[in-house]
Amino acid sequence: MKAEIITIGDELLIGQTIDTNAAWMGAELSRLGFDIHRKISIHDDRNDILETLKETSGRADLVLVTGGLGPTSDDITKQTICEFFKCRLIVSNEVLSMIEEMMKRRGMPMNENNRRQAEVPDKCRVLFNAAGTAPGMWFEKDKTVFIFMPGVPYEMKYIMTEHVVPELKTRFGSQIIIHKNIMTYGTPEARLAELLKGFEADLPSDIKLAYLPSFGIIKLRLTATGSDHLLLNNEIEKQVNKLYEIIPGLIYGEDEKSLEMVIGELLKDRKQTICTAESCTGGKIAELITSIPGSSVYYKGSIIAYDNSVKIDLLDVPERLLKKYGAVSEQVVKCMANGGRKVLNADYSVATSGIAGPDGGTESKPVGTVWIAVASDKGTLAEKYVFGNDRNLNITRFSIAAMNLIRKQIIS
Amino acid sequence: MKAEIITIGDELLIGQTIDTNAAWMGAELSRLGFDIHRKISIHDDRNDILETLKETSGRADLVLVTGGLGPTSDDITKQTICEFFKCRLIVSNEVLSMIEEMMKRRGMPMNENNRRQAEVPDKCRVLFNAAGTAPGMWFEKDKTVFIFMPGVPYEMKYIMTEHVVPELKTRFGSQIIIHKNIMTYGTPEARLAELLKGFEADLPSDIKLAYLPSFGIIKLRLTATGSDHLLLNNEIEKQVNKLYEIIPGLIYGEDEKSLEMVIGELLKDRKQTICTAESCTGGKIAELITSIPGSSVYYKGSIIAYDNSVKIDLLDVPERLLKKYGAVSEQVVKCMANGGRKVLNADYSVATSGIAGPDGGTESKPVGTVWIAVASDKGTLAEKYVFGNDRNLNITRFSIAAMNLIRKQIIS
Repeated sequence: MKAEIITIGDELLIGQTIDTNAAWMGAELSRLGFDIHRKISIHDDRNDILETLKETSGRADLVLVTGGLGPTSDDITKQTICEFFKCRLIVSNEVLSMIEEMMKRRGMPMNENNRRQAEVPDKCRVLFNAAGTAPGMWFEKDKTVFIFMPGVPYEMKYIMTEHVVPELKTRFGSQIIIHKNIMTYGTPEARLAELLKGFEADLPSDIKLAYLPSFGIIKLRLTATGSDHLLLNNEIEKQVNKLYEIIPGLIYGEDEKSLEMVIGELLKDRKQTICTAESCTGGKIAELITSIPGSSVYYKGSIIAYDNSVKIDLLDVPERLLKKYGAVSEQVVKCMANGGRKVLNADYSVATSGIAGPDGGTESKPVGTVWIAVASDKGTLAEKYVFGNDRNLNITRFSIAAMNLIRKQIIS
Repeated sequence: MKAEIITIGDELLIGQTIDTNAAWMGAELSRLGFDIHRKISIHDDRNDILETLKETSGRADLVLVTGGLGPTSDDITKQTICEFFKCRLIVSNEVLSMIEEMMKRRGMPMNENNRRQAEVPDKCRVLFNAAGTAPGMWFEKDKTVFIFMPGVPYEMKYIMTEHVVPELKTRFGSQIIIHKNIMTYGTPEARLAELLKGFEADLPSDIKLAYLPSFGIIKLRLTATGSDHLLLNNEIEKQVNKLYEIIPGLIYGEDEKSLEMVIGELLKDRKQTICTAESCTGGKIAELITSIPGSSVYYKGSIIAYDNSVKIDLLDVPERLLKKYGAVSEQVVKCMANGGRKVLNADYSVATSGIAGPDGGTESKPVGTVWIAVASDKGTLAEKYVFGNDRNLNITRFSIAAMNLIRKQIIS
């Protein structure tokens, strides 16, 4: 099955916005077994939109289109769609009442632009959008399915996840593609590939392995393609078991599990709690932990001790330690973890102290250096890592390293 | 002048790689005054490449192509280019000796793949690539200029910066395009469009306005097209001044400024400090503030009081207030802001308490409700907002609303 993706918006062409939508949709369609053979970005321009829709019509089985569905005058997709599919705009009462409801909840009055958002082409099937005001639209023409969605990423993702993916699965699901992800942390891609060289060579021809690295986490994606669901599942399971034998210490979870999800599950199972005492990560670890629904059960809170005075006053770090070893040291980070645990009264406490950059590095402690400590009844463990030069990458990498250290301490 | 961008590579289509190259080239071309009217991503496939080159030929004045120039067997662009331009590959001695030099410097032996990199089509002008082994290639056909570059971002950028941009400037330098962004917060897109209806109608024909929303922030992009740089700059400035007159309270900055950047600048100017006392945002505000390099000058730290016990013990929130009004209330969030300010000893303190979801909502306090308070010498201000149902969207929206409230209090 051939698919094409069209993204509409001047900001994509002049490089003000990087087209993450197209990448996300590409990954989703690929998972469903589609061959995405073209991605096109065009202007918010009637002629360009018409020309591109005409081009793709008949050439692809499925065309996903995003952008240009907002309420402002630079958004002209909806009118142009009507022209292309030879239909007219009518008010959808369902969409209208949803928008009214949404505005009411936010305490804002309805205006003409909001009402225009409820207009949909009379030949389309409406795909409700609970994440915003512009609905998605499903058309069929010359054996091609066209799906139009807003360009705001979370709105597009909502419509894709709730409506488009499930329906495409039922409709185009003849060839079966099964993906299984094994999540690893703790070794670079090149080294992991070396460890798995034999495994990869022995893979049956209908199973492919891909390495998807992100901030130190490497997702191993096994993809099985065939026609027998049971058979494919069995084959995948066999390969997964093999992976657990080859790299047991590196695997922390399966599927799309994040470290924060795994930690949450471990703590809930054990009815234990955690707190954080962050310096250089500035709240990123807390943010990751609390991104999980229900984390209030096991997360107590944090003291972000960015300034040394906060380390001294609230985390009970002795000033002489700061003077003698510096804030970025094993001694200080252990004190921070212990101090946080005491004040915030949790079973586990994690602390970070490092140099995220771009400034503040020295020869012995270059930018990218971080000390991470985890304190618990099992004692206080500290580890040092050195990453790169980019501030925001460092903050994320420090935080993920900390999450993995927490995980290892909980299961130790 | 019309330009198109073609990026070649399977990884772009299945979403494993986000197409940052296309965005970067788009921004460069836009700056040179090109109208980029199409970006296309295609497979490493002979037919797709030939078809796309044929399409763009004649339609555009300039076509930039990246990808598929590597030494491995899946890179077939060079052979296909020869087919399209009806020419053959010859060894470029200049490229060969450059590659030999490079390999020698890295202490690596030359192999067959390296030698093949020195082969170039005999009809092209070679664009030397000091950042890698694959040279760029410049062709002209039917009045269209075609430029081929490797897909490795820093190699493409090297060739663009050293060869392509300077030459395009001399050759096509007539039309000028200027972009100016005005950053707003505090009103939905539909309402903003209403406020700017008259402004938009009065815009001169060579200036266009676009609305780019993201988590409550709406970027207004003004684009001026013409031939006189000074004239366009003056016109843009006139329109920007008008915007400041129409929506003074909604504009928080210009260009690509984030709220955390603006707050950082305001605090540095005033030599003041800030701290945070977050509940529902769980460290997100701290993370935004500390994402700015140099924030350690004005950011003291945070108490993340996720658990009520932390609100009581560390932020000095009276237990009776929590019992009487609940944690998500004006009374409690004000206490949190005041308590945080006292303990962390900062000029400004911001606190949040809300229901991010998916659970925990009630009829009077539905999921998406948040109370935000800012405490300072000017007093303690609290505001309530109601957003949507998605936990992670809510956390981001709460945090951005808090950032704007901080900004308003600092400049008040």
